[in-house]
Amino acid sequence: MADPLDLAADPVELTAALVDIPSVSRDEARIADAVERALREQTPLEVVRHGDAVLARTNLGRPNRVVLAGHLDTVPVNDNLPARLVDGVLHGCGTVDMKGGDAVMLHLAATTPAPRHDLTFVFYDCEEIEAVHNGLGRVERELPEWLRGDLAIVCEPSNAVIEAGCQGTVRVEVRATGARAHTARGWMGVNAIHALGEVLRRLEAYEPRHVEIDGCHYREGLQAVGVSGGVAGNVVPDEAVLTVNHRFAPDRSPEQAERHLRELFRGYDVTVTDLSPGALPGLAHPVTRELVAASGGTPVAKLGWTDVARFAALGMPAVNLGPGDPSLAHTKQENVPVNQVRQCLEVLRRFLG
Amino acid sequence: MADPLDLAADPVELTAALVDIPSVSRDEARIADAVERALREQTPLEVVRHGDAVLARTNLGRPNRVVLAGHLDTVPVNDNLPARLVDGVLHGCGTVDMKGGDAVMLHLAATTPAPRHDLTFVFYDCEEIEAVHNGLGRVERELPEWLRGDLAIVCEPSNAVIEAGCQGTVRVEVRATGARAHTARGWMGVNAIHALGEVLRRLEAYEPRHVEIDGCHYREGLQAVGVSGGVAGNVVPDEAVLTVNHRFAPDRSPEQAERHLRELFRGYDVTVTDLSPGALPGLAHPVTRELVAASGGTPVAKLGWTDVARFAALGMPAVNLGPGDPSLAHTKQENVPVNQVRQCLEVLRRFLG
Repeated sequence: MADPLDLAADPVELTAALVDIPSVSRDEARIADAVERALREQTPLEVVRHGDAVLARTNLGRPNRVVLAGHLDTVPVNDNLPARLVDGVLHGCGTVDMKGGDAVMLHLAATTPAPRHDLTFVFYDCEEIEAVHNGLGRVERELPEWLRGDLAIVCEPSNAVIEAGCQGTVRVEVRATGARAHTARGWMGVNAIHALGEVLRRLEAYEPRHVEIDGCHYREGLQAVGVSGGVAGNVVPDEAVLTVNHRFAPDRSPEQAERHLRELFRGYDVTVTDLSPGALPGLAHPVTRELVAASGGTPVAKLGWTDVARFAALGMPAVNLGPGDPSLAHTKQENVPVNQVRQCLEVLRRFLG
Repeated sequence: MADPLDLAADPVELTAALVDIPSVSRDEARIADAVERALREQTPLEVVRHGDAVLARTNLGRPNRVVLAGHLDTVPVNDNLPARLVDGVLHGCGTVDMKGGDAVMLHLAATTPAPRHDLTFVFYDCEEIEAVHNGLGRVERELPEWLRGDLAIVCEPSNAVIEAGCQGTVRVEVRATGARAHTARGWMGVNAIHALGEVLRRLEAYEPRHVEIDGCHYREGLQAVGVSGGVAGNVVPDEAVLTVNHRFAPDRSPEQAERHLRELFRGYDVTVTDLSPGALPGLAHPVTRELVAASGGTPVAKLGWTDVARFAALGMPAVNLGPGDPSLAHTKQENVPVNQVRQCLEVLRRFLG
């Protein structure tokens, strides 16, 4: 059993302590136990354990409630444990994704006895694997009242800047069909791979939108992510499939994004294989405005997809704010600069005053 | 052990008898035994067994020698044995590819004691599997004098028409490269699948040559036969590969065909994975002219690749002449019309008369 977590201690040491409890997806019991035990010691908090998710909240009767969320699991350890602090940077599996953010949340829970808004802390499991296992999704289905609030802050890495909303993502298979023939008599067939040429031409001619919402700049994208086709080395192929991923700004609904792709690839068989809504930045809400003011910076658009979108789908403004560079997530070299851990903490402390 | 083959009997019955000795590639011992035994009974023939190939020849001191070649193996049986004769059509595995042709050869061997040209009969194994196992190739390496002659007739199905020469075939992999990036920030990468668009455009714009040689019309072709690429559903792919099969008229050497593709796909990484020369029709040779005259028809170009090209590479004119529709080869429904078996026999008998 790990040493008890000292939530009130230095948040960088707390990050390292969390990193040193391995918690690859589906193996989060130990870290959830440690988090649960530490949170139960904080008397003003109501704590609930739900599978390997740990939920905690204040019940101070404030007019607004802020939900802070972070997952406890990591991708598989890659010879990068235990945590190592080198020149102000903490290295190790889970440092940036996202135990730095978890540490900020835990430290706040222990050191903010009278926050300006009621707070809900959601630590959850299985974010790094197929969406169907996602602990936040399970909490949403089984304890929905625990996710209610006026603003959600997902503490995924954002370089300690507020990233607002997120883009949606849709993946489609664009299928071209033809007719087989022996290549010695190729003109008797219809080549399905050749027919993909027109699809690639449309991709090439495509001008992705740049969209400004609440001062955030979203940049859409349309990329082929897979292609396959072929029967044998001497056969004109009768089927070829191009898989395309479209990232769309949150002013488009999933249905609109799907319709857009169906129009773009008219004449081809289009199958949606994956579709997740974006999230509007929601920066007009008074509580969000307070957070932006506390951060002292200008929010930027979140381009990737995160669990922010789950909160947005519940009708709440939701933002990302966490320490570290998200592009280091899932790499062997992942790390988090300690000054960003402290910076996130300060912003949230100012916000919650 | 099968009943002895009666080579002098009706060639259609002989075809059926050969079909009823299953001889899937690498399992040709039984049919080779039967063919060898029957040929050894023909006194004017010199017979050699070489693995599961059986070679037989006359040594009559004629000024010219004609080589007749047929493979004994078939593709796997597909619930299509034994042979069935229905309305003048013999059905079953190997009927068209190519025991009808083998039967014509065997019947000739037994019933043409004084042919106008010396004859060499080559029955060989493993034609239907990877070229490296091909029995004709083995004979060429180990008993090369057995393939020498002034004309080769490969009795593969040709609808009983003389198909002259054959087209060459070259397969290349055209590789596009790029740089990976997360699709949420696709503009930071270079999409290798998108880069294949230009390759497909060149394929589409390609005008295959039509080439006339010795009155035979060759029609070239250029077909994508495979495509693959993709890293993950959210990653801009850094590699994509298109496999292209080019069928080229026999006025082009393999080196010229390869150079042609390298020029066509300039700017891309091109790897040759397979290259087989074509064969010129060689219809100007006097012995070939005799065969054409005996057939009473006009030769047509062979578009597919056959072992004809092996003989052409030895510097001999070589043609295809055999009963049945080649497009039925390798199908469950394969069959050979009995009148085409008889027709081939008559043409060759007139020729050798």
